[in-house]
Amino acid sequence: MTQKRIVILGGGFGGLAVAAGLGDAEAQVTVIDQRNHNLFQPLLYQVATAALSPADIAEPIRKTLGRFRNIRVMLAAVAGVDTAAQVVTTESGDAVPYDTLIVATGSVYNYFGNDHWRTHAPGLKSLSEARVIRQRLLLALERAELAKDAEARRGLLTAVVIGGGPTGVEMAGAIAELGRDVLARDFRDLGPEGFHVVLVEAGDRVLSAFPERLSDYTLKALTARGVHVWTGRSVKDVRPDGVLIDEEFVPAGVVVWGAGVRASPAADWLGVPAGKGGKIAVDGRLRVIGLENVHALGDVAHLEDASGAPLPALAQVAKQQGDWLGKHLRREMTGGPALPDFTFHNRGNTAVIGRNDAVFDFGRWQMRGWFAWVLWALVHVWLLVNFEKRILVSIQWVWRYLTRQSGARIIDERAPERADASRPDMP
Amino acid sequence: MTQKRIVILGGGFGGLAVAAGLGDAEAQVTVIDQRNHNLFQPLLYQVATAALSPADIAEPIRKTLGRFRNIRVMLAAVAGVDTAAQVVTTESGDAVPYDTLIVATGSVYNYFGNDHWRTHAPGLKSLSEARVIRQRLLLALERAELAKDAEARRGLLTAVVIGGGPTGVEMAGAIAELGRDVLARDFRDLGPEGFHVVLVEAGDRVLSAFPERLSDYTLKALTARGVHVWTGRSVKDVRPDGVLIDEEFVPAGVVVWGAGVRASPAADWLGVPAGKGGKIAVDGRLRVIGLENVHALGDVAHLEDASGAPLPALAQVAKQQGDWLGKHLRREMTGGPALPDFTFHNRGNTAVIGRNDAVFDFGRWQMRGWFAWVLWALVHVWLLVNFEKRILVSIQWVWRYLTRQSGARIIDERAPERADASRPDMP
Repeated sequence: MTQKRIVILGGGFGGLAVAAGLGDAEAQVTVIDQRNHNLFQPLLYQVATAALSPADIAEPIRKTLGRFRNIRVMLAAVAGVDTAAQVVTTESGDAVPYDTLIVATGSVYNYFGNDHWRTHAPGLKSLSEARVIRQRLLLALERAELAKDAEARRGLLTAVVIGGGPTGVEMAGAIAELGRDVLARDFRDLGPEGFHVVLVEAGDRVLSAFPERLSDYTLKALTARGVHVWTGRSVKDVRPDGVLIDEEFVPAGVVVWGAGVRASPAADWLGVPAGKGGKIAVDGRLRVIGLENVHALGDVAHLEDASGAPLPALAQVAKQQGDWLGKHLRREMTGGPALPDFTFHNRGNTAVIGRNDAVFDFGRWQMRGWFAWVLWALVHVWLLVNFEKRILVSIQWVWRYLTRQSGARIIDERAPERADASRPDMP
Repeated sequence: MTQKRIVILGGGFGGLAVAAGLGDAEAQVTVIDQRNHNLFQPLLYQVATAALSPADIAEPIRKTLGRFRNIRVMLAAVAGVDTAAQVVTTESGDAVPYDTLIVATGSVYNYFGNDHWRTHAPGLKSLSEARVIRQRLLLALERAELAKDAEARRGLLTAVVIGGGPTGVEMAGAIAELGRDVLARDFRDLGPEGFHVVLVEAGDRVLSAFPERLSDYTLKALTARGVHVWTGRSVKDVRPDGVLIDEEFVPAGVVVWGAGVRASPAADWLGVPAGKGGKIAVDGRLRVIGLENVHALGDVAHLEDASGAPLPALAQVAKQQGDWLGKHLRREMTGGPALPDFTFHNRGNTAVIGRNDAVFDFGRWQMRGWFAWVLWALVHVWLLVNFEKRILVSIQWVWRYLTRQSGARIIDERAPERADASRPDMP
């Protein structure tokens, strides 16, 4: 008997959970991702602000799944899916046939039709973006010290963060702390009071997905840390040297984008209608509506809870769906009793504001301040992929907390990277 | 009374030792470097072979020297020195006057007139080069698994290391181990026996600066690890897809250059004759011969020991010279008794071959094998810049040793890096 061929697109929280659930099952599983690693995105802002190293929060997918002999990992970018022939094609021209396809390719930042802004305002979805932000931030401080006039210096010492969701709040808080600590400690000619962070949010409050009292608390906490929070104001243009906010041009040394995401282009690959944010509608068994043998989950899938609200684009949703789908597919193969439809269990939504301060929303009750921050730290260390990373990150956090030193403030020289462009690129 | 202005070019082992020796002295010290960090180069090969992260072996110069209020750090590339006017000019157009100049800019890889080889065969002098090597190595394995024909696969599974000095030996040994471990563990369709490392050395033995019996030992140890050591053979060309060695073209997925260094172009800046390897002649007080108020040390300086042999280009030479010069300059300022001329104390020369194996040469006696490897590890952890890095590196090494897992095998996507080229570059 030939084994069922299950192809999983995407090695993030959702895709890996499905794969792990199918480990050593009677099926040939192929995981296709354009990156060789899975990334613990909730801590990516710490890479961008020089607190952690890329390897602390990323692990090769091959390593995560290496113990399962039935799982194959393929480093490739998806070009399309032929749902009639049941074949995935990759940009390098490989054709991968499937019996069951699982789409878990997540989301990308949404520049709302201004994709050229991305060069000047990278988001926080990949290690290389985090490194670009870190380099610009650290270089801006170096350049500010050498700047000849006060106006140029003021621009270089300003960071603009676009979007008041959890990513924007975390970046703004962390940049403010980094700027203040580093300027006070390491720069002879610049004072910490010269450093500015502007957080721009088009809506009327930050953390709009959280209860209003946590938004108010976060606004006050950010302001106390020296972040200028501008709500109800819109970004009109992003330029190499700053951001046009409504009518006002704000010169900036570094700009970070965190103003919303949209689903990866999986609806196009599959030829199904894209819903709000480019998402694909799925039913309670995570089947893509209108297709046979195709499932979708995580940020790319649109599913509503019992109250009719769409599930949020959170790691915990993707992970719970991946766990459910892995178990469901295994039951199908072994002929066990059918699982009830997927339901989401909210484990709490959180955003960290900075040292000693975070907010937690558990639905019926909330937490904020130091206890929330400690809980945040414990949860995030625990969610790291393995024991070694837990130890390494814990040590670095404790060290930073005790010494108030920031971590990996390394500016890599870039010349050889560029020379490298002459090499043959990705397969 | 105006304070003496001391300018140090280069924040490596030598420059930092001088600066630390002048910490809180009655002098204005400026350290100019084109990187913001000092790099522990002896462990750079571990970054290139995915055992450690860049931040484990690099520290911002500002952080290292941050506790001294009289030391200023400047991120800039030197354009030239006006020795008559006593001014250093930078590429960003700044002019930095000095009363005493210290040149400690180290060395660069020597491609013997073939600088275009560098793109295809990076050396191991910077974090970005180490990262390029790591990415090529890991990508070559990914591509090999997807390769359609056996010949292309064989090329991708071959690594060529050029130069049989310590760097070449360490890289060859580490790549062989990485390839074998990763292929055996993480790649379903490739066997470890398909992976090849070729170490090319133009001379008649590897580690030519070491006693012959250690060279013989190293040759055997490398061969046992599956490294093909080709001595007495010359590289005629380096191409995107391999290396021409004498008349034979060896296709390769990754090529590493470790075939000798030359001094940074300080002789040109100073307008003094460049000796062998571009070095600047100094006297026993590390003064550049023919100039007033200019010292040079480390890889950029030519000084002979009592027997007339030039001091080797080793970190320990630079460090000892920097310590001596810092103390000497401080004595000059405070009017203490003059120091005797600098003399080098050999602390032992070492090269690591791989897991459980290294060689040590202490002049009168030698060590090799497991004890040398443990000593190598202890010494190198001890030499790391601070307690935090010692802990972090120790944990990772112990973890790797116990689990036989390699570490930071992360391929960063590169697209955003390239987009970044449109940003204004270094100041």
